[in-house]
Amino acid sequence: MADVIKTAAIEGMVCPVPLRHAEKIVQGHGSGGKLMQDLIAKTFLAAWDNPILSAGNDAGVIPTQGVARLAISTDAHVVSPLFFPGGDIGRLAVCGTVNDVAMLGAQPLYLTVSFILEEGLDLSTLERVVASMHAAATEAGVQIVAGDTKVVGRGMADGLYISTTGVGLLPEGTAIHGAAAQPGDGVIISGSLGDHGIAVLSARGELGFETELASDVAPLNGLISEMLGASQGIHVLRDPTRGGLATTLNEIVRQSKVGIILKEGTLPIKPAVDAACELLGFDPLYIANEGKLVAVVSREDSSRVLEAMRSHEYGKEAAIIGEVVAEPTGRVLMETLIGSHRVVDVLMGELLPRIC
Amino acid sequence: MADVIKTAAIEGMVCPVPLRHAEKIVQGHGSGGKLMQDLIAKTFLAAWDNPILSAGNDAGVIPTQGVARLAISTDAHVVSPLFFPGGDIGRLAVCGTVNDVAMLGAQPLYLTVSFILEEGLDLSTLERVVASMHAAATEAGVQIVAGDTKVVGRGMADGLYISTTGVGLLPEGTAIHGAAAQPGDGVIISGSLGDHGIAVLSARGELGFETELASDVAPLNGLISEMLGASQGIHVLRDPTRGGLATTLNEIVRQSKVGIILKEGTLPIKPAVDAACELLGFDPLYIANEGKLVAVVSREDSSRVLEAMRSHEYGKEAAIIGEVVAEPTGRVLMETLIGSHRVVDVLMGELLPRIC
Repeated sequence: MADVIKTAAIEGMVCPVPLRHAEKIVQGHGSGGKLMQDLIAKTFLAAWDNPILSAGNDAGVIPTQGVARLAISTDAHVVSPLFFPGGDIGRLAVCGTVNDVAMLGAQPLYLTVSFILEEGLDLSTLERVVASMHAAATEAGVQIVAGDTKVVGRGMADGLYISTTGVGLLPEGTAIHGAAAQPGDGVIISGSLGDHGIAVLSARGELGFETELASDVAPLNGLISEMLGASQGIHVLRDPTRGGLATTLNEIVRQSKVGIILKEGTLPIKPAVDAACELLGFDPLYIANEGKLVAVVSREDSSRVLEAMRSHEYGKEAAIIGEVVAEPTGRVLMETLIGSHRVVDVLMGELLPRIC
Repeated sequence: MADVIKTAAIEGMVCPVPLRHAEKIVQGHGSGGKLMQDLIAKTFLAAWDNPILSAGNDAGVIPTQGVARLAISTDAHVVSPLFFPGGDIGRLAVCGTVNDVAMLGAQPLYLTVSFILEEGLDLSTLERVVASMHAAATEAGVQIVAGDTKVVGRGMADGLYISTTGVGLLPEGTAIHGAAAQPGDGVIISGSLGDHGIAVLSARGELGFETELASDVAPLNGLISEMLGASQGIHVLRDPTRGGLATTLNEIVRQSKVGIILKEGTLPIKPAVDAACELLGFDPLYIANEGKLVAVVSREDSSRVLEAMRSHEYGKEAAIIGEVVAEPTGRVLMETLIGSHRVVDVLMGELLPRIC
């Protein structure tokens, strides 16, 4: 079979690899062929290696561990810029999806990742993002078990976009969801509002002044685990991302057919966020968070849950900010310091594009 | 609470909705707020409604039906143009992921979908894609259980991109994967090669002549179900998408540490594909398929599986195209009509960008 070996020696001739541009993403990195296989081996598997992923089949095989139900969630991530104080698109893509799965009380265990890469992207940029995803996945205790890469031409994306899908095990009897809030429940926020949105805006240079504010992007499944250990009375968990706390609370009152009254002055807002919002005419209630959750908890368990939250790194500044009421149904109201009420409505239009 | 109702009446003032552009995608469709909620209700839920999706939580809850293992796979879809003979990006996004899950012998049941939409996209275009996804999902017997929408500015995408993730139940004892090919096994292809890639190229006007060729994009889980019913001797299933049959077979020989010898003249290739490839200097073995599978089957069951395939709509032109050999390990060879052998290597670089 000498002829075979001879032929093999010129395998590179089929379609020459543009070696001069090896440090940049080229169309071939999305072809399914040799360049993509190299990218998978040297960039993705090198960082994320685990037996499920490295089996290299069309799908990853994940054990259900005997549970009857799984929680599954997906998000595309298009944040601009790719790197910002406190995080980057990779950490965001892992945490955002981990958090969505965790908000049902599920234990997030597996992630899939699909990339859309723009031709010309520095490979080193991709590698930084991949390393950040690994760090976030390790912190959250999840494995990346399947992936995909597509490459589009210059001007057809903005560096890179990432879609992640997360799967978590839902323990039997868990019934935490948006329709479970009940009159009398306490409303708790895990920390300060608006840090992520304002940090990203600052990284874009759109604030017009310097700020030391960092994004809060973080995986919240550890915090939730502590909360679930402290109480059986957690009815709703939700992360106030796009649209901010105001939009999230409006979703809850509609799903649960209740009202919520917030108490002005109880909402934790950092001075830097307050200042930026005042300057720009924004309301921190509508700014995206990526490492915060709102919990609706039975009245009798609210203090216990608050205490459990404050003992965790990501819940130190947790605060009870309001309560669930029977009327007015479907409305979130803010009780001002002088005792009047104003409606806190859902976000209309768009305040800050490409924040996540 | 008259003041509340009065305030509510001016809720649209928070951030005016650009009603004049309601027929186009605007940034607000990705904001998490009112416009996005409308898009979800009127476009996605209207087309895909099911109890899991319409629960409207951060994650969908899916039953595991008592199986111990699930198959999960993800793909980004960036095909250009969005609509092509035989399919569109929506059908592709559903079928591509359904097929990846099915290639492990799993029963695909659930899909998640994340969109990246370019500002200015016609809403009617999105609606056509969403309807096509519904039709494909119905054909495949899968439910869309979670989704996400992001909007990027003009020139930051090319109309729309779709990432899908699929989950399937893996019956106990199923062990179909890329490392399971054994010397003596037959290699079967389910139909003609290269239809998808050439159809997309033709839709781009890059062929320079007219062709009636249509993409083969189709869900293959029904075909696989028939095959599994006919034989316990199916060792490997894989869909030869990007990189074509040549690249797929090379993956199998590497994972299984075997060789494959293809027989020239046995590969089904339509005259239109042959003509286009000859004109453009392509080899149909490297062109993407989206509704074909390659099966590696025990020698004694090959005819039975072939027969089962030919009785199914998507396997009518199935053919035995080669066999697995012990040597040379890791090589795919083509035995020519005159009895010599040439190496069929993995795709280098990129032939046809944005084919899927």
